[in-house]
Amino acid sequence: MIPASICSVMHPPKVRCEMPQAPMRIKVINPNTTVSMTDKIGAVARSVASSGVEIITCNPESGPAAIEGHYDEAVGTVGLLDEICKGETEGIDGYVIACFGDPGLLAARELAKGPVLGIAEAAMHAASFISTGFSIVTTLGRTRVIAQRLVHNYGMTPFCRKVRAIDLPVLSLETPDARAAILQECRLALEEDHCGAIILGCGGMADLSAQLSQELGVPVIEGVSVAVKLVEVLVSLGLKTSKVGDLAYPTCKSD
Amino acid sequence: MIPASICSVMHPPKVRCEMPQAPMRIKVINPNTTVSMTDKIGAVARSVASSGVEIITCNPESGPAAIEGHYDEAVGTVGLLDEICKGETEGIDGYVIACFGDPGLLAARELAKGPVLGIAEAAMHAASFISTGFSIVTTLGRTRVIAQRLVHNYGMTPFCRKVRAIDLPVLSLETPDARAAILQECRLALEEDHCGAIILGCGGMADLSAQLSQELGVPVIEGVSVAVKLVEVLVSLGLKTSKVGDLAYPTCKSD
Amino acid sequence: MIPASICSVMHPPKVRCEMPQAPMRIKVINPNTTVSMTDKIGAVARSVASSGVEIITCNPESGPAAIEGHYDEAVGTVGLLDEICKGETEGIDGYVIACFGDPGLLAARELAKGPVLGIAEAAMHAASFISTGFSIVTTLGRTRVIAQRLVHNYGMTPFCRKVRAIDLPVLSLETPDARAAILQECRLALEEDHCGAIILGCGGMADLSAQLSQELGVPVIEGVSVAVKLVEVLVSLGLKTSKVGDLAYPTCKSD
Amino acid sequence: MIPASICSVMHPPKVRCEMPQAPMRIKVINPNTTVSMTDKIGAVARSVASSGVEIITCNPESGPAAIEGHYDEAVGTVGLLDEICKGETEGIDGYVIACFGDPGLLAARELAKGPVLGIAEAAMHAASFISTGFSIVTTLGRTRVIAQRLVHNYGMTPFCRKVRAIDLPVLSLETPDARAAILQECRLALEEDHCGAIILGCGGMADLSAQLSQELGVPVIEGVSVAVKLVEVLVSLGLKTSKVGDLAYPTCKSD
Amino acid sequence: MIPASICSVMHPPKVRCEMPQAPMRIKVINPNTTVSMTDKIGAVARSVASSGVEIITCNPESGPAAIEGHYDEAVGTVGLLDEICKGETEGIDGYVIACFGDPGLLAARELAKGPVLGIAEAAMHAASFISTGFSIVTTLGRTRVIAQRLVHNYGMTPFCRKVRAIDLPVLSLETPDARAAILQECRLALEEDHCGAIILGCGGMADLSAQLSQELGVPVIEGVSVAVKLVEVLVSLGLKTSKVGDLAYPTCKSD
Amino acid sequence: MIPASICSVMHPPKVRCEMPQAPMRIKVINPNTTVSMTDKIGAVARSVASSGVEIITCNPESGPAAIEGHYDEAVGTVGLLDEICKGETEGIDGYVIACFGDPGLLAARELAKGPVLGIAEAAMHAASFISTGFSIVTTLGRTRVIAQRLVHNYGMTPFCRKVRAIDLPVLSLETPDARAAILQECRLALEEDHCGAIILGCGGMADLSAQLSQELGVPVIEGVSVAVKLVEVLVSLGLKTSKVGDLAYPTCKSD
Repeated sequence: MIPASICSVMHPPKVRCEMPQAPMRIKVINPNTTVSMTDKIGAVARSVASSGVEIITCNPESGPAAIEGHYDEAVGTVGLLDEICKGETEGIDGYVIACFGDPGLLAARELAKGPVLGIAEAAMHAASFISTGFSIVTTLGRTRVIAQRLVHNYGMTPFCRKVRAIDLPVLSLETPDARAAILQECRLALEEDHCGAIILGCGGMADLSAQLSQELGVPVIEGVSVAVKLVEVLVSLGLKTSKVGDLAYPTCKSD
Repeated sequence: MIPASICSVMHPPKVRCEMPQAPMRIKVINPNTTVSMTDKIGAVARSVASSGVEIITCNPESGPAAIEGHYDEAVGTVGLLDEICKGETEGIDGYVIACFGDPGLLAARELAKGPVLGIAEAAMHAASFISTGFSIVTTLGRTRVIAQRLVHNYGMTPFCRKVRAIDLPVLSLETPDARAAILQECRLALEEDHCGAIILGCGGMADLSAQLSQELGVPVIEGVSVAVKLVEVLVSLGLKTSKVGDLAYPTCKSD
Repeated sequence: MIPASICSVMHPPKVRCEMPQAPMRIKVINPNTTVSMTDKIGAVARSVASSGVEIITCNPESGPAAIEGHYDEAVGTVGLLDEICKGETEGIDGYVIACFGDPGLLAARELAKGPVLGIAEAAMHAASFISTGFSIVTTLGRTRVIAQRLVHNYGMTPFCRKVRAIDLPVLSLETPDARAAILQECRLALEEDHCGAIILGCGGMADLSAQLSQELGVPVIEGVSVAVKLVEVLVSLGLKTSKVGDLAYPTCKSD
Repeated sequence: MIPASICSVMHPPKVRCEMPQAPMRIKVINPNTTVSMTDKIGAVARSVASSGVEIITCNPESGPAAIEGHYDEAVGTVGLLDEICKGETEGIDGYVIACFGDPGLLAARELAKGPVLGIAEAAMHAASFISTGFSIVTTLGRTRVIAQRLVHNYGMTPFCRKVRAIDLPVLSLETPDARAAILQECRLALEEDHCGAIILGCGGMADLSAQLSQELGVPVIEGVSVAVKLVEVLVSLGLKTSKVGDLAYPTCKSD
Repeated sequence: MIPASICSVMHPPKVRCEMPQAPMRIKVINPNTTVSMTDKIGAVARSVASSGVEIITCNPESGPAAIEGHYDEAVGTVGLLDEICKGETEGIDGYVIACFGDPGLLAARELAKGPVLGIAEAAMHAASFISTGFSIVTTLGRTRVIAQRLVHNYGMTPFCRKVRAIDLPVLSLETPDARAAILQECRLALEEDHCGAIILGCGGMADLSAQLSQELGVPVIEGVSVAVKLVEVLVSLGLKTSKVGDLAYPTCKSD
Repeated sequence: MIPASICSVMHPPKVRCEMPQAPMRIKVINPNTTVSMTDKIGAVARSVASSGVEIITCNPESGPAAIEGHYDEAVGTVGLLDEICKGETEGIDGYVIACFGDPGLLAARELAKGPVLGIAEAAMHAASFISTGFSIVTTLGRTRVIAQRLVHNYGMTPFCRKVRAIDLPVLSLETPDARAAILQECRLALEEDHCGAIILGCGGMADLSAQLSQELGVPVIEGVSVAVKLVEVLVSLGLKTSKVGDLAYPTCKSD
């Protein structure tokens, strides 16, 4: 069943203020329901936001506790889109989807006037600016295909050397074992993949990039910080989601 | 908000009967809420089903009346997955997603023990068996990108000559104008695209293929009938969705 | 020298009956001359054919005893096309080319009014319906390139994880060593390739899929059964080879 | 039925002379049976051959009078391979397949010790050396797909702007109308395709390149002359067909 | 002959300060010698730079007055790299290559410690964030291939609908005719290409995006402003050019 | 700073002799400054040149002693283009760029009336004629990306199995250790890559192909000899660089 709050978005509000209000407001949405992960993501986002930029973080009230497959993504997308809808009535300037599968990205762009970025998208594009090849280290092996489809969809195939998995679930990322496994997999990537940068393939790894980067001597990129900054850039340049073509607001079917 | 009925699926039932029951039962799900379209799709499905195959049709109670974009797909997917969940408790042997965007296809495959086919997928594969190039005629231009992504995802790029749109909404397909526009666009496809077959790019066109095929002298393929038959084939051969890899049942996060 | 029986096909018979006769007749052609292989293929084909479908099997009288390279394919194609020609005068409704290289597929489609499927083609498409990645296990390493070209031609590149070879000739497939080698290679595929399904890359392996599937716990697909069922589907839906474009009947050059 | 002369090739002659005899001998095989076309091709080949290179031309005694589709190719390939077999016993150093579809190319390479080139292959590679984009002008529209597959197989996709057809049969190429149609299509290619070179897509156009090149002011390339010269190059450098991998001599199945 | 100033760079300075100095300093290099274009580019760059970011602009003293081909790029690259070398001794934090062909991008990255972005690269990535398809409008038709290669190298093929040229030289861009031609070509792109955004394909068009965007109702993106902001982002996140792999400092060959 | 000698080329000489002079003159340019390497390359070139063909060899006076990265390529390109300019006034008929990265290839083609070939380009095309897959063995790992981009640009992706590096610098190639490392890497390529031919990925390896080919039993191809012969072919056929499109002479910006 589709909650009424979402259906209402299908008739987008008529009145919109054209000028971004001071301060710029960016909503960072964790599409799973694990509040500790939302908090971690929020801390990373706030640590990089420019002064004068307000970071609003949230997660859906119900839905998957972690997103580890296609079904989780589909269910998490509903909560995510609900938050985008709310954001549009709250004067949000831009959005970040803080889950490495970038679930609901194009649907979110249909709803939003401003820019929407996924953290996988942001991380991959940034990696392509500072290296000629990156590897991705993600959690469960079953999400490998999801990452590979994103690589393709974003045109990053020539840059992505390999998608690697530590085969541990998202919610175990806080354990020392998981951290050791990530470090180990990163080392393997550098030895075997001929890559010059590493992307952390899960929103729950957002706090690890600085330390790993120092230990490994190569850029280790997590997408939350990059996505926040890219949204800042697009908003500051007045670059909004194009409403010509398939990202136009959803069609109204009735009433 | 995620309905409880869906969440329960995240803990897949332990006991499953291994042998398909007689008769084979195929559930054809229209992910939009327009009952007349469900009926039309059902009629086509039943007209081609083998004897001894029961066709169950349904559509979500709420959601978009037509699926004409990424947001519609995301919302319609929730209702669709709900129907898959129900189907798994009803002993369904296989499923058809009866919307040309094949929304939620991989998520549905995670949930289902048996095969799941999308009608776009089915139509494209069939077209590649009987021609070396096809064109797709769809409804609104904004859905063109969706079709093109499917073409890519299914590996059909070498076969797809062009995706064409008549620029009329899904719910207008019953009008004579729409039918004339479809015929006209098909003629253009044959003249300009060097294609040998045409695919009708909307579940709501399912009843038009026979007549158009006769008028145009080339195979005109709609996906509902093909998808039903392909599901029959897979079920009869015992080919179920692989539960090794990323189509395994969704992970259980808690309790 | 081209046998007269083939040349005559270049002037396709004028009168063709439009309605498929009861029963549906599908000709399964083994393009090599090894009768025991034809028999094995026939047994598999008949075991899956719907009631009311007659399976006719055959192989050329002369030509290669096994098809293990480009030259074998070219020579085997002549005998194959001869059988298609005969089939067109015998009222055959559809054809299966029962050799994993799918030799002569497009030439056969030019000759045939009804659908023609190759077993590699059939297996790959089916695998893409029930997994997001498959590996192929074939016989001699030298045929690997042939399989890879088919993968590409059918658009299956995003789905094919790897083409593997056991490096044993086709005609040794009946030996216990060969069976052990196939099982071993399948296990390696599952461990190393992140695949969810396995395709058996030789018509001579057609009888192994059920047992391997059970031992390995993933779908193991052989193409003969799938191809027979797909031809059934296309015939039952009235989907014939498009005669517009490059699959039109061969041109008549003289007389 | 396979002629005995071909079957014997499956057991390649044991004794082969290692050193190319003086003079170098290149066999140019027209795989169709139209002698006037063989003569025209031979004249072009001889006009470019280096002194000390003997050009042997031939065509099969039976088979299609022109190659205008997949079936024609399959049948013509048999005669072609027969000529390669004969050539291997005659001490031929290299071969040219003088038909724009390059039928039987890989099979021929399996049989031959020395290099084998197709005229489409030769023309496309040469065009990529002197322009960043070429268009192909061929005969019947139905052969367009064949040319496009070659473009792909040879990796020429980034260079090929368009495959164009004059929609006239191969055997009409001598008529003034055909020549006018070719010139007209070349002009269209230059105006619309942003190409810097044009490839003539039929062995029967081999005598037209010089005049068209002068009229159009861009390189107009036909493959016979290029292929002959490329075979000369490979032979003179001692570069023979690799017998490691899938181009090794055909396997012997019995006796 | 290679000027001594460049050769010295092959032995990169030993001492480098690790912390970005306040203020951040970004060098925007116009690789052609036309000072008025450098000024225009500088004005755009400064208009978008964050407070606390110093923009340094420059162009080589000698070299091509405009970059309109591969040779112009090769020659302009030398002057560009000279400016990067100087920048490395001046404590520059990041660079923008302000020419739409992004000449010398990877060579510049080898020399630079911080990030280097090209304006074509920046524009394309930004366009992919706010639309699912863009067209490029550039100057001379002969530069079309250059843009297309960039599209490919950056993985933007799925997003780029078409590269269009107004067929006027770079140095004529100030004329009213050129402006009219650009507007006209943008309109054609929207009508024919199904694109949602337009990229201006020349550094000399940097001042036109705002007005065109307003006239056309879609995002019109020029790369200078985007590249400056992206460099700001990378510098602020501490993301420097990876020195592991092929972007490591140039090797020292002697002394 | 751009030397005057180069700038003058931007105004290409008006008078050009249309007919190739006897003898044909091919200039083989080593873009690095190591004379011993130029000599080695020249010896190889002369050993394969046809009688009546004069080989002129040269290298820039200043620039990198070896080309081992993007920056080296950019700097070496300037000297290379200078030599092309000189060649155009000296009546050179065609050019070879004797460095495996093929630096400046398209810029050189803009300047030259006759054909220009790179040795990587030549080697890859030749390898595709005599095998269905090759591996490349190059020097430093950091040049791997350069080779891979060439593979892509020339459309050789379907043929290139792997790019391998021995991780030794170009200038160490004369040592016994380097030769052993090359042989070892070639053996690995044959064992692991399923390749049928090997390409030596450095101009400095030009003298090794014959011996390696004999030791390994597969074609081992170096590009200098092939490129010289291909230029001979193009010149003898009158196939010059197309001056229509993006390889036209550089535009004149002023005076």
